[in-house]
Formats: sequence, structure tokens, C-alpha cells
Amino acid sequence: MNGAESLLRSLMANGVNVCFGNPGTSEMHFVAALDEVEGMRPILCLFEGVATGAADGYARMAGKPACTLLHLGPGLANGLANLHNARRAQSPVVNIVGDHASSHARYEAPLTSDLKGFARPVSHWLHSSSSSLTVGADAARAVQAATEAPGQVATLILPADTAWNPADDVASTLPFPAPALVSEQTIEYVASLVQSGVRTAFLLRGEALQEKGLRAAGRIAAKTGARLLCDTFAPRLQRGAGRVPVERLPYFAEQVVEFLSGTELIILVGAQPPVSFFAYPDKPSWLTPEGCRLAVLSHPHENGPAALDALVDALGVNTCVAKTSIRQPVEVSLDGPLDAESIMRVVAKHLPDNAIITEESSLALPFYGLTETAAPHDFLTLTGGAIGSMMAVSVGAGIACPERKVVNLQGDGSAMYTVQSLWTQARENVDVVTVIYANRGYKILSNELKRVGAAENGVHAASMFDLQNPALDWVALAKGMGVEAVRAESREDFEAAFASAMKRRGPMLIEAVI
Amino acid sequence: MNGAESLLRSLMANGVNVCFGNPGTSEMHFVAALDEVEGMRPILCLFEGVATGAADGYARMAGKPACTLLHLGPGLANGLANLHNARRAQSPVVNIVGDHASSHARYEAPLTSDLKGFARPVSHWLHSSSSSLTVGADAARAVQAATEAPGQVATLILPADTAWNPADDVASTLPFPAPALVSEQTIEYVASLVQSGVRTAFLLRGEALQEKGLRAAGRIAAKTGARLLCDTFAPRLQRGAGRVPVERLPYFAEQVVEFLSGTELIILVGAQPPVSFFAYPDKPSWLTPEGCRLAVLSHPHENGPAALDALVDALGVNTCVAKTSIRQPVEVSLDGPLDAESIMRVVAKHLPDNAIITEESSLALPFYGLTETAAPHDFLTLTGGAIGSMMAVSVGAGIACPERKVVNLQGDGSAMYTVQSLWTQARENVDVVTVIYANRGYKILSNELKRVGAAENGVHAASMFDLQNPALDWVALAKGMGVEAVRAESREDFEAAFASAMKRRGPMLIEAVI
Repeated sequence: MNGAESLLRSLMANGVNVCFGNPGTSEMHFVAALDEVEGMRPILCLFEGVATGAADGYARMAGKPACTLLHLGPGLANGLANLHNARRAQSPVVNIVGDHASSHARYEAPLTSDLKGFARPVSHWLHSSSSSLTVGADAARAVQAATEAPGQVATLILPADTAWNPADDVASTLPFPAPALVSEQTIEYVASLVQSGVRTAFLLRGEALQEKGLRAAGRIAAKTGARLLCDTFAPRLQRGAGRVPVERLPYFAEQVVEFLSGTELIILVGAQPPVSFFAYPDKPSWLTPEGCRLAVLSHPHENGPAALDALVDALGVNTCVAKTSIRQPVEVSLDGPLDAESIMRVVAKHLPDNAIITEESSLALPFYGLTETAAPHDFLTLTGGAIGSMMAVSVGAGIACPERKVVNLQGDGSAMYTVQSLWTQARENVDVVTVIYANRGYKILSNELKRVGAAENGVHAASMFDLQNPALDWVALAKGMGVEAVRAESREDFEAAFASAMKRRGPMLIEAVI
Repeated sequence: MNGAESLLRSLMANGVNVCFGNPGTSEMHFVAALDEVEGMRPILCLFEGVATGAADGYARMAGKPACTLLHLGPGLANGLANLHNARRAQSPVVNIVGDHASSHARYEAPLTSDLKGFARPVSHWLHSSSSSLTVGADAARAVQAATEAPGQVATLILPADTAWNPADDVASTLPFPAPALVSEQTIEYVASLVQSGVRTAFLLRGEALQEKGLRAAGRIAAKTGARLLCDTFAPRLQRGAGRVPVERLPYFAEQVVEFLSGTELIILVGAQPPVSFFAYPDKPSWLTPEGCRLAVLSHPHENGPAALDALVDALGVNTCVAKTSIRQPVEVSLDGPLDAESIMRVVAKHLPDNAIITEESSLALPFYGLTETAAPHDFLTLTGGAIGSMMAVSVGAGIACPERKVVNLQGDGSAMYTVQSLWTQARENVDVVTVIYANRGYKILSNELKRVGAAENGVHAASMFDLQNPALDWVALAKGMGVEAVRAESREDFEAAFASAMKRRGPMLIEAVI
């Protein structure tokens, strides 16, 4: 057994069995070991941002880490933006990054770089293996570090000689650390605040946004009238018919201010206090209303659903019935042009049970409410603002949940950053339907230009937001990567394409021209 | 005038007039300023790696920096791999990276990251502006830092408030620092070594590989019989008919050992001693032959051509005539399948005068010699090993030299990393002909797997090098981004396509199926 095989077996002994990779020469022994060891599924990505974004999506849906396999500093660098998003999503991810052999590191070879320097800003845990004899134990610890609540990015650097030299051991399985429990004192304190009768909102994040947590929060809300909120961009939210509805914070600072107006108490459950996404001249960054009290029920590393259950007990609301969304038929008028609202109506109408929606489009956001009463689904968004996330997240979500349909609502500008995701969708036959909101521009930016108080769009500025010259042909791009695609220019076309895509399996792209 | 306008005017006062950008909200005032100030050419890229790679290509050909415009930490992160290549190419590049407004930095907004941490591994110079009043002076210094010999990466972080607050000044023009001159003692010392009659090779890099330096080196070689060498991956080499020929070091360690065998003295002119690209078990990393002496004529920051001229004087070889390549007709046999050799024969035959060849294909490399006697051209390669370089470098080279044809010889695997380059080629009508070596695999890696002594290709390993499932359709991909494309499956097809592409202007892609 060499180090690579020890590493691979140790990853698997610790529950990691999917690898999103883009390897190079320094990772060849790891690649070779894939044929020595059964049970690790290697998934090739043609760009590292696809690998890291897919690992994020996988983690959000599987609740455990996949590993990535990346090639030296520059390979990791290409994956950093989506690791930033994974970090903000609190997704457990294990990066395996090949490095030059120890004996080669002293020479300034072309690919030599400050690998740890690249890794540090996104890694909660970072280590470079020093020997083939310890690489298995290092891998076990990397997995454990990734699974520390609420989920962390662990980066293990693998010098080539630690992969090719002999090893004699597979690391044992390390226990996954359970999230901390909130103290009784905290529960009592928060209960007393809630019982004081002030206008209260719970801001939920992490596991509290899944069914168990939501049911508890729903009981409290039913009794106390408290609002249930989630961040504009939450990693994962279970919603739709039969689920406890949660209000999503709007995107722009002034909308949030209005939305929270009158709130006297915000209780944070795994969330941070709301702040604006960007700063704007003369607009606030800190969005908690003046005079509103902030209280923490649970920190991100603590068990949010358990804390909500304990609060249910403390408030004596165990028998209260939470309000849930009731499935409602959606009407789609075929009158009028295809637009963001009609797209979302079609999605809401035809969404199958238990789908996964991934969303990275500023046009989709305002019509979020339309899917509230659609079939139950998981809803995943861009958590870290680094665009180019959901094309890749949709790949990982589909790999984690092969029996569920993934619907990716995607802006055309943002889709281009990790467009290579389509190839992996085709190769692995991932069941993702990508809807491109083809408005042929960075719409969000022409809005933002006005909002930051910059001058009116002149010709140069306008050119920086314009994707019309030339227009991207998404049907051709998808075809180029082996994904079936259609263009829809009317509501009728789009409904026909989407409804048909929901009834078949495998990747498909719909260019919705709006 | 606000900070953004002061910055923009200061960049221009210091000679920067091209901006490769992918801006976001925090850069909106910079974008707005583009309409207030005439003379900066903004070039939109759909992925940041295209912007940084284009800036590298621009710098190599223009000999001065362009600026990039990037969006916060993740935007910079997407550009890091090609900044690593630019650093290895010793290209002057000025990065302008927008950041959250100072007042917003204390909140943990989604896009908050360790921006300086991301920047440090690739930046020779790094600074975050603290006020709109100093941002112009900061920009002037950034340009000066970038132009320090041999060329540096300078990263200026621009908090949004330093762009939107008032400024009252445009920075003055700072002098570009000239490279240092080599001392007379060094010239005399190297001259004495050369005159000792040992078997000598000059390893040239940087400006020494352009015509002036090559002429001087050619005179020395003509008199002394010294070999003239360049690295496998040099940033820019002037070659072809009429130019002094230089031998390119082969790629693999054992080939280099044989190539340098018998060499008793290596004189470094702006180059480092040769080392292998990767380490392999039981193969050397350090490739200077045992007993061979190493001497430095000029360090990278010193003036190599001037040092060679001085050495010419010291050796008294001013009247020697350098050997130059003589243009030779190239024969292209139409018998046999399209392969890497016949592609290069066609390129050599039809290359127009003064073209720029960019190369990122392990298949093209062995046939390098075929273009030695073609029309004179500049030859640019992947300097830092971070693949995904030349698609973008070709954009920048074409922008720097609009009157010259760019021919990009590109592997299919590597082309995918920055495939978005095609869109910018179409938008800006850059005169680049991309030849895709479509062997539908990471050919280099299946070779490397054997070389590192890993096990025979099994099914999992083989799948990590295989781009056949599905095959990329490059004609469709190019069409998707507005670039005209054809597929060539025979020598006849390829020659017809390439010859026709050489006679027209504007971007074109040829998928050469081999």
C-alpha cells in the first residue's frame, strides 16, 4: 500500500465516497489508487470551480462532505471562489490538494506557489502531510475537522512523495463531533423574552431551516405570533406545501429596513444579525431596527433544532399546531411576453414532489413567493455572493440525491463563470434542469450603478453590463457540452419545455429569452 | 471629481489605457468614471481568469501594463491562476480590486473575505487605499511598482468609499524604473569564462529573447560556438526567418539531461538554472549537468540585452555575423490522418509575417522546430503551468497588437478552463485564430500516470483523463459565444480552413480532430 491508497481508504473509512476532481501530474498516484480501491466515486470536472461548487452542493444535501482533488496552488486557486461560498454555506468540504514532492519544493519550478497562502482565507483547517506514513491519519482528521458544526472547509495538502511512498496503515474512523447543546439558562432567558409580549421575529439558519426545526419554530409562532424569517441567501431551506412557511429577507438594505420595521426583538437561531449585502452612500449597513433587542438562541455551531424544541417545551406550546403552506393550483396566463414572473409560475405549477431548487438569478428572487405553495422542495441559494455557484451546486445536489429532480434557476451572466458544469452534468447524467434567464446582461449591475449614486449609464458603463454583443447562444453552448437544450421565447414554449423536462430524467437546459 | 475618476485619470497619466474587467457593485463608481474620462478602453470579460490572462498577454506584447478590474476577494480569486502565470512571465500587471466600503468592512457581509490573503501569493506589491484623496497617488505607485524590472504584479485594493468620496487631484506621472545595468566586473568575469574554451551554453530569458538581445547573443555564438538556449516555457521569444535561432529546452527531465549532456558552462541571462517541471520518483529535479559551472551574466531585474552587448564588446565580436534562420518552404503531405505534426506543418506553411503564436498544447510542443524557418513571429507559452492561460493570453496579445495575426495552438482540455475568452474575442473582434487540438482527453496526464510510476491505467484512472464522454463540440461552443468555427478531420480540411483563416481578419476557431 502506498500513501495514496492509505489516504483513499482512510477517507472512505470516514464516510467520504465521492470525489469531485480535476487532477494533474502531482495527483497521479491518488488517481491510480482509485482503481486499487473500490467505493470512491470519482467525478471529473473540467474546471476546479465546478469541483468545489459541486462539493458544496453535495454537502448541503448529503449532510456530509465529499472531497475535491485539486492540482497544486493554481488548481486550488481556481476553486477558491466556490470554497468561499461553501464556507458561507457552512458546508463540510474536504479538499485534497496535490503538491510538488518534498524534494522538489526547494526548486522554483513553474507551478511552485504559496499553496498555504492560497488556502488560508477559505480553510477552517489546513495541513500539509509530511509523510506517507501519516497521510491516512491526516485524512481522517481532515474529515473530522470538516464535520465540526456547523460545517467547515478542511484542506489537506498532499506532497506527491507522501502519495507514492509506502504506507502501512488505514486510519481508523474518527467520531464526528456533535453540535453543542444550548444551555438551559439560555432557553429560559429566551423564553422569558418571548413571553414579554414584544413584537418578535426568529431569524433561522442552518439545520433550523429543515423540517424538524421548522415544525418547532412553527409551534412557537402559532402561539406567540412571532414572525419566522430566513436570510436572503440561506444554504438550504425546506419549503413548499406541508412545510412551515418562512419569510425571506429582501435583498436591498432599504427593503430590509421596511420589512423589519416595528420589530422589537430578533431571536437568532444559527444566524447572524442582518446586514446589507453591499454598502451604499447614505444607506445603512446594520439592519436591526433601532431599539430592537437581539438575542441568541443558538450560535451556528450549536444545535438549532434541539434549541427550538427546548424552547417549545419551555413555552409549553407542544400541542400548538404550526401553520403550514397549503398546496395551491398555479395559474399561468399565456397572454403576454415570457418574463421572470411567468417563468416562476410555470416552475411552481410543474415542480415535482421533493425537487431541489437552486437559485442564482436576481430576476428570480422577487418571485420567490410563487413557489411557497408549490410541491414540497429544498431551496438552495448563493450564500457567499461569489457568482458562478449554482451551476456547480446543482451538480453536487444531483449527485447527492439521484432520485430527486434539480431545477437550477440561473442568470445568464452568472452561468458563464462555471459553464463547464454542463459537461459534468452530461457525463454523470445528473438530473438537473437548468433554466437560463437570458436577459443578455448583468441586470443586477445596471440597477446597482444607479443605487450607488454613480452617474447615469454612459456608453462605456453600459457596455460593461451588456451581454448582447454578441448574444450568448445557450442552446449551442449546452450542445457543445453534450446537454440537450431548447430555447423558449414565449410563455407557451417555456411551459411546454419545462413540463416536458419535469417528466424525463437527465440534464436539460432551457434558454428562456426574456 | 471623485476618487474613481482620480484613480482612472492617474492610471492614464501613468500610461495605462486598457482595462480588462469583470466588475460588480463595489466597482460601480469606477465603471461610471469610464464615461467621464476619455481614453481608457474597457474590455468586458465573462470570467476573471480571462481578464488576468488577457492582462498577461497584453503586457508581454505591449511591454507595459494593462489594468484589471475585479470584484472583491472572490473576483480576485477567480483571476489568481492566471496571475500566477503572469508572475512567472514577469509581466507587469496592475490589478484594481474593489472592496466593501470601509464602513461596511466590520460587518460580516456575504462577500467579506480576506482579500489581502487572496492577493498576497501572486502580488509583488499590495496596497489598500485608505482615502479618496490618496487613491490617485496609490494608482500611480501601483503602475510604477508593476513596471519595476523585470515586470511585477501590483494589486491595489479600492474600498468603495475611496471611489465615491470626493478627490481633488490627479496623481503626477511617476518615472518607470529602468532595469539595473550589469557591472563591468561581471562582464569581464563572464568574458573570461567564455574565453576559457569550455563547452558553453547561454540560457536566455526575458528581453534577451527579443531581436536586440538575440543579435548580440548570436554574434557571441558565431565566434565561440556557444549554444543559445531558452526555457521550455518562455514568456516571449522572437523567432522565425531572419531571427537568431534558439534551442528550446525539452519538457521532460530525462530529455533535458540528455540535451545538456557535455555542457561545461551555463551562462544565465535573466534565467534561472534549469529544473524539472515536476518531480518523478528516481528522476532528478536539478538539471544542470554534474561538474557544469553556472554563471550569471544578468539577473532577471537587470538589463539582459545591454549585458549581452557589453559582452560582445568585451569579447571583441562586434563584427561577427550571427547565424539566422532562413525561410524554407514547408511541405504538407495530404497523405495520412490529421495529426499534431501535419497541423504544425500547415501552420508553418501559412503563417503570415509578424504573427504571434501562443501555445498551450502538449501535442504541439514536439513539433516546435517546424516553425523555426517559418515567417518571423513572436512565440508565447504557458509560463506558470496553470492551465487555462493561452485562451486569455491570446486575447490580450491581440488587443496589444491589433495589426498582427494571433494563432493560438490550444489543447482541448486546457481550453475549457477559460473558454469564456472566445466571447471577448468576438465582442472586441480580436484577430485570433484558435486551433483546438481535439484529441478529447488530457493526453499529458495519461502519459504522466505512467511516468510517475503509478499503476497501469484502470477504468477509474482512465476516466479522469478522458474527455470523450461526452465529446466536446468546439464548433458549437464557439458558435455559442459568437465566434465562427469549423471542424477539420483531415489534413486537406485543416489546411483549407487554416489558410483561409490567415487571409481574413477577426476571431475564428478550428477544431482539429486528431
